[in-house]
Amino acid sequence: MSKGRLEAFSDGVIAILITIMVLELKVPEGADWAAIRPLVPVFLTYVLSFVFLGIYWNNHHHMLHAAERINGKILWANLHLLFWLSLVPFITGWMGENHFAPLPTAVYGSVLLMAGVAFTILKDLLVAAQGPGSTLAAALGDDTKGKVSLGLYVAAIPLAFVNHWISDAIYVAVALIWLVPDPRIESRLGRR
Amino acid sequence: MSKGRLEAFSDGVIAILITIMVLELKVPEGADWAAIRPLVPVFLTYVLSFVFLGIYWNNHHHMLHAAERINGKILWANLHLLFWLSLVPFITGWMGENHFAPLPTAVYGSVLLMAGVAFTILKDLLVAAQGPGSTLAAALGDDTKGKVSLGLYVAAIPLAFVNHWISDAIYVAVALIWLVPDPRIESRLGRR
Amino acid sequence: MSKGRLEAFSDGVIAILITIMVLELKVPEGADWAAIRPLVPVFLTYVLSFVFLGIYWNNHHHMLHAAERINGKILWANLHLLFWLSLVPFITGWMGENHFAPLPTAVYGSVLLMAGVAFTILKDLLVAAQGPGSTLAAALGDDTKGKVSLGLYVAAIPLAFVNHWISDAIYVAVALIWLVPDPRIESRLGRR
Amino acid sequence: MSKGRLEAFSDGVIAILITIMVLELKVPEGADWAAIRPLVPVFLTYVLSFVFLGIYWNNHHHMLHAAERINGKILWANLHLLFWLSLVPFITGWMGENHFAPLPTAVYGSVLLMAGVAFTILKDLLVAAQGPGSTLAAALGDDTKGKVSLGLYVAAIPLAFVNHWISDAIYVAVALIWLVPDPRIESRLGRR
Repeated sequence: MSKGRLEAFSDGVIAILITIMVLELKVPEGADWAAIRPLVPVFLTYVLSFVFLGIYWNNHHHMLHAAERINGKILWANLHLLFWLSLVPFITGWMGENHFAPLPTAVYGSVLLMAGVAFTILKDLLVAAQGPGSTLAAALGDDTKGKVSLGLYVAAIPLAFVNHWISDAIYVAVALIWLVPDPRIESRLGRR
Repeated sequence: MSKGRLEAFSDGVIAILITIMVLELKVPEGADWAAIRPLVPVFLTYVLSFVFLGIYWNNHHHMLHAAERINGKILWANLHLLFWLSLVPFITGWMGENHFAPLPTAVYGSVLLMAGVAFTILKDLLVAAQGPGSTLAAALGDDTKGKVSLGLYVAAIPLAFVNHWISDAIYVAVALIWLVPDPRIESRLGRR
Repeated sequence: MSKGRLEAFSDGVIAILITIMVLELKVPEGADWAAIRPLVPVFLTYVLSFVFLGIYWNNHHHMLHAAERINGKILWANLHLLFWLSLVPFITGWMGENHFAPLPTAVYGSVLLMAGVAFTILKDLLVAAQGPGSTLAAALGDDTKGKVSLGLYVAAIPLAFVNHWISDAIYVAVALIWLVPDPRIESRLGRR
Repeated sequence: MSKGRLEAFSDGVIAILITIMVLELKVPEGADWAAIRPLVPVFLTYVLSFVFLGIYWNNHHHMLHAAERINGKILWANLHLLFWLSLVPFITGWMGENHFAPLPTAVYGSVLLMAGVAFTILKDLLVAAQGPGSTLAAALGDDTKGKVSLGLYVAAIPLAFVNHWISDAIYVAVALIWLVPDPRIESRLGRR
């Protein structure tokens, strides 16, 4: 029951973030192609951020689905995750409007890194709360994808000042890692 | 249970889209009729987009109601649909503020077309997940309305550059096709 | 179940409307009283609209709680109600920023009138769907408050062009009619 | 059931407030550190307000979880609380953009005070509705934290005109009081 409200609140926040992000796509003045050409980098960043928020929603959904026990610390760890995700519309607008300039690109990676760290904290608290031998611990396994993603973000942040396209490529790569279906987890968690 | 969260998230996103769209109706400076006259095309586009989002919510609601099984691919197909719907406030503002100019009208149709394609993909994945002889497959039938709508969008996009009123009329026609009640589906799905 | 999703969607839309309305309270430039004095009429309109949306949420909540059957027409009647409510942030900003000028005051009343009409249509469809002798029909009674409110709006709209303070006073009066607790309905519906 | 909808609506409003607040973080023009330096006070205020809204959500969640009976007055007391919380994005932007100037700092405290008063009213109505010897009354205890917080706000408001840093420090202190885990309440309410 309490889990239900945690899920509902998180769904609400992520749903709002994913949609207010589109407000960064400012309606242009003109009605021709020239008017929307400057929006292309903002649009591409929007697509990337949409996918990242979608991945977080998906993973959050799966993780909470397998969890049975919640406590006060978990509520705060969840709010901590939502805090970093709440900065995504801001960094999306900033990176997009500055055509992937080094500093915004590095800050984009930093926010993704912090969100990844917050997700890991939430995951560890959830696993601890379920006790040993839980379905959740078994379903999550050793979380290789999560660790690789954090490592890639750590690399991408300084690389943004060397060549920001490398960092942008890393972000796309991380998104693809998570988008590729992972049938083992699905089968282990059974029908969802 | 998992279906519940998918529905809740989709409801959240569609509810937010349908309401932030109204932010495109910028509060005018003056307090007379002249001040709100320029808002008329934006308002009309708002009404049209509100109806389209309402149709999507309605159809999504009915389709998910008849579905029993969900999987990871369906979650992503649903996010894919929400992505295209998330562009509706942007295209509504763009088409409205440019008084239905050709390019915005064509882009409006393109986003509707992509949303329609995304809905079809979601529908096919849902039907496949339910297995043969499901209530859902029976309820959806051969989806004539869906196919006709996609065909009309495909026609409307190039026609916007011939005469944009034709395209606008087609969008209104598609909305009317879905607004007209369809008692056969209701009776087949029973009380909802 | 289906009723649950209708409630959730309506809650979402009303919750968003009630909160995006606050975006009309633009953060002022200065940090003294002079800077926020121009916001006073916007703030007062915000309070009034907040109360109206609260009343709608409350009544919607009570009415749906007593309903058991839903159909496709009811879904659309509900969207029709949400459409008129979605214009509340716009008319709130317009009336507030123009210090209750005649035309915005009349338009404010017109949107409230249309929302009231939409609520009445929704109510009638719900009562019809429950069949004769339903709890809902008994709980709603003869809807005197609803009829009086519609009559007052009809009077307030032309009166805005005579003296807009009369219309504003009428809107406050309608809000008070609904805010005053009505123990008979509560007891008839039992514990909620 | 009715409690569920009250929770859902409150979650919706708080989730939206916590996310539209980020819109006050306007995307800067430049792509260097100089461009985001002016955003630092807005960002700090955002963090503070995020924590306050998180505390309210948490406490609301716990309090409603232990409640079993709801009535019409409680619905309105809840809307009254949401009204004051709805002003948080506005005061966050105003205090942040004016670098914690005296008047915005005092108004920030006033809104927090009114939200605290509204929460107390809601709590008292909920306790009264549960009847004597309820789990809720036992779980809430004598509400020392709540009373101390209200006292601190009352002190902070005039102090903002003496030295606004004192008031800002008080707000941070109140947030910390609530962030520190309180194991007695958790154990008394049992697993949540």
